[in-house]
Formats: sequence, C-alpha cells, structure tokens
Amino acid sequence: MTYELYYWTGIQGRGEFVRLALEDAGADYVDVARNRGDAVLDPFLAGDSSEDALPFAPPILRAGHLLIAQTAAILAYLGQHLRLVPEGEARRIYANQLQLTVADLVAEVHDSHHPIAASLYYEDQRLEAQRRAADLRAHRLPKYLGYFEQVLARSDGRHALGEHSYVDLSLFQLMAGLDYAFPNAMRRLGKDMRRLRALAGEVAQRPRIAAYLDSPRRLPFNENGIFRHYPELDDPA
Amino acid sequence: MTYELYYWTGIQGRGEFVRLALEDAGADYVDVARNRGDAVLDPFLAGDSSEDALPFAPPILRAGHLLIAQTAAILAYLGQHLRLVPEGEARRIYANQLQLTVADLVAEVHDSHHPIAASLYYEDQRLEAQRRAADLRAHRLPKYLGYFEQVLARSDGRHALGEHSYVDLSLFQLMAGLDYAFPNAMRRLGKDMRRLRALAGEVAQRPRIAAYLDSPRRLPFNENGIFRHYPELDDPA
Repeated sequence: MTYELYYWTGIQGRGEFVRLALEDAGADYVDVARNRGDAVLDPFLAGDSSEDALPFAPPILRAGHLLIAQTAAILAYLGQHLRLVPEGEARRIYANQLQLTVADLVAEVHDSHHPIAASLYYEDQRLEAQRRAADLRAHRLPKYLGYFEQVLARSDGRHALGEHSYVDLSLFQLMAGLDYAFPNAMRRLGKDMRRLRALAGEVAQRPRIAAYLDSPRRLPFNENGIFRHYPELDDPA
Repeated sequence: MTYELYYWTGIQGRGEFVRLALEDAGADYVDVARNRGDAVLDPFLAGDSSEDALPFAPPILRAGHLLIAQTAAILAYLGQHLRLVPEGEARRIYANQLQLTVADLVAEVHDSHHPIAASLYYEDQRLEAQRRAADLRAHRLPKYLGYFEQVLARSDGRHALGEHSYVDLSLFQLMAGLDYAFPNAMRRLGKDMRRLRALAGEVAQRPRIAAYLDSPRRLPFNENGIFRHYPELDDPA
C-alpha cells in the first residue's frame, strides 16, 4: 500500500512524528503537500472532502480506504501495520499512552512561544511567552523528561517498550526538538536524562533514520514550527 | 469485571469523561480515591507501583491486568469492552480521533484560566488569562464547536458516529462544562450549534446518565476543575 501523508510544507511540525515512523519502516508513502502544495489540505479543512471521517487538523494519513487524523491515532494505526509496536493489547495500549504523553508535552512546547493565541504573532505575546517558557524549563521539562527516564528504567533501559517501537522514534524527535529550542536548559538537565540521550543516539543511527536525517526530506527546525529557538525563552547561556 | 478508576477527588476533571462511559454502560466500577482519598494516587505518580505500565497523570483505569492512563486511551479501551463504539476498525479509529480533538479543546479550556503555569494560582495570571480567554471565545470555541457540528451533520445529525458512542458522552460533557464556564459566550454561539445542543439534551435523558447526574456521584463544576466560571473570562452579560 502507498500511504499518503497530508501535512503543512515548510515545517517539521506534528507531521514529523508520522514521517519518522514511515521512514523507519521503509514504507511506501507520498508526502502529498510537499509535492503539490498546501492547497491539497484545503478540502479536508473546509469539510469538503467526501470521506466519512472529518479531520480537524493535519497531520492526516490516507491508508487505503481509511482517513486518519491526530498524530497519536495515526501512529497507533501505523504501529500495528508497520510492526512498530510490540505484540499484545497491553503493550499497544501502553505505547498509545506514552505517545499521548509526548503529544501533551509537544502542545506545552508550542504554547511556550504562543501562550495567548496561536493566531497572534510571537512578538505580540513575547512577555507572556517568557513567563510560560520559564515555567516550562523549571518545572514541566524536568517532570516530563524525568517521567520518560523512569519509563526507560522500568523497561530494558534503552527502549520505552522493551523493544524498538514508534514511541522511541517520537522520543528521539522530542529530544531533537528540545535540543534545538532550549539548548541551554537541555544542557542543564542533561545529567538526569542519560537514558533518553542514549535512546536518541541509537535511533539516529538506525540506517533508514540516518539516511532520512541526511536527506532533503528532513527539513531543518525553524521559527515557524513547534520547536522554536528564541534565546530569550531559553536558560541564560 | 470490576473496573477501578483512579482520579482526584473534589473535581470532575478529565476523570469525568471516563465516569460517564462507565455510568452509561452500567459498568461495575469503584471510584477508588473517592473511597480512600487522593493518597491512593501517590504510588502511581511516584513510579512506585509494580505495574509494567507507568502513568504520567490521572485518570488511570485498572481493568483486570491492564493499567491504562490518558483519557482517550481509556475510552478507546472501554468503548470496545462496554460496546460504546461502533464495530469496525474505521469507526473505532474515527472515534479515537474525535475524542483526541475533544481532549485538545479541554486542554485549551484549562489553559484559558492557566495560560502561564498550572503551578501558579489563577490570580497570578489573571491578566494573561483574560487575553487568552478572549481568543478562546472569539476563535477557538467557534472553530472547534463548528467542527463538531459538521461531524454531526455528516453523520446522522444526532450522533458523532451514526449511533450512540462514548464520543457523544464526551461531547455532552464538553457542552456542560462550556455552559458552566462561559454562559454568555455559549449563548452567543448557540445559533450555530443546534445539533450539539440536541445531542447534549438526548445524552442527559439517557436513563443511566440522568440517574447519574441526579446522584451525589456527579460533583458540581467548581473553580478547582478544568471548566471554571470566572465572569471576567466570559463575554460581557
């Protein structure tokens, strides 16, 4: 099957969590908007598509007759079909729970530069962003990253689920984004997240992921995406 | 099976979405913290439980040997086991997508009174809350509620999925919470959400839901929960 991914061009965004799964599995997929422009998203978002399922926002995956939106829902589906999640109901449910927790942190990272409104420019909420980002760095990042360290410790120390899964790919992406956005804070927190660091290093060396990261398909992080580097939102150097 | 629900006492919170599913299905369940106090949550949150799965936050459901956290993951599980979701992979996936979109709005509602930090008092972020809540009322509520209206229109007009499901219960709870928090804004938006209003009315009249809403198990909304009524965050009267 050829999967079709629909996501905004120009940023990694939430679509990147889906891309990493497709790339790691060597799946046959088309990144539709990158080929044909963001306008391909319009029918979905205007409610004009003829599908039964109505997405609220990208990323959207077409898989045969299925149309799936919401990153965690897409990954739960792909995990099973691309063998990126361990067998068994309990493991699949736990993978989904972990992915949803990644998603919660991703939303908090977004709001650290847009605490008032996604529809306003960063410059129009910069002071509020400084307050929110300070809390993120002081409380939320240590809490979430400490949690994921515990998850790894409780497993085999190297994988969230005792073997490779889409959750590890997402944790890699989370670390990559946080390193880009908050390099000073991540250095400070480094000593408490040795397992996450090792996991991220191992994922980056998986042959298909390494090839993907070297390819033009992997866009650089930038200040239109979720993970943005604004020095005033990071720890002082 | 007797399900065990673990959630904070004193508020409806995200646990309420799970309670509504359990109550609607007439499931046998124990609301553990309400019987034994919030301290029963400590072992989970300290990482001291002996389970394979480590929750990040409540609600948490114990179902036999399974321990499930994240509201949408719990409802995806209960939906199948309590017959609160239509048959078939496509419908289950769509239900989950819709629930995740409800969850996204619930998180935005929370942040409308806590835009800077969950760890700070409302009073310490009241000005920022007024800016964020104004955007929620002007842009986000119409966008989300308009979306759910489209979902209903594309289905049978009365159910998100063409028949009763946990998603309808969640939409009921969403409307109840928004009516409590933003009564003036919801009156203004009313003409554009006739289907959601009808759905909420029908859910409230389901016998087990009506009995639950009349029982002491249904806590009133209050200013410790997610849906809070602060007049300065609503439209002017």
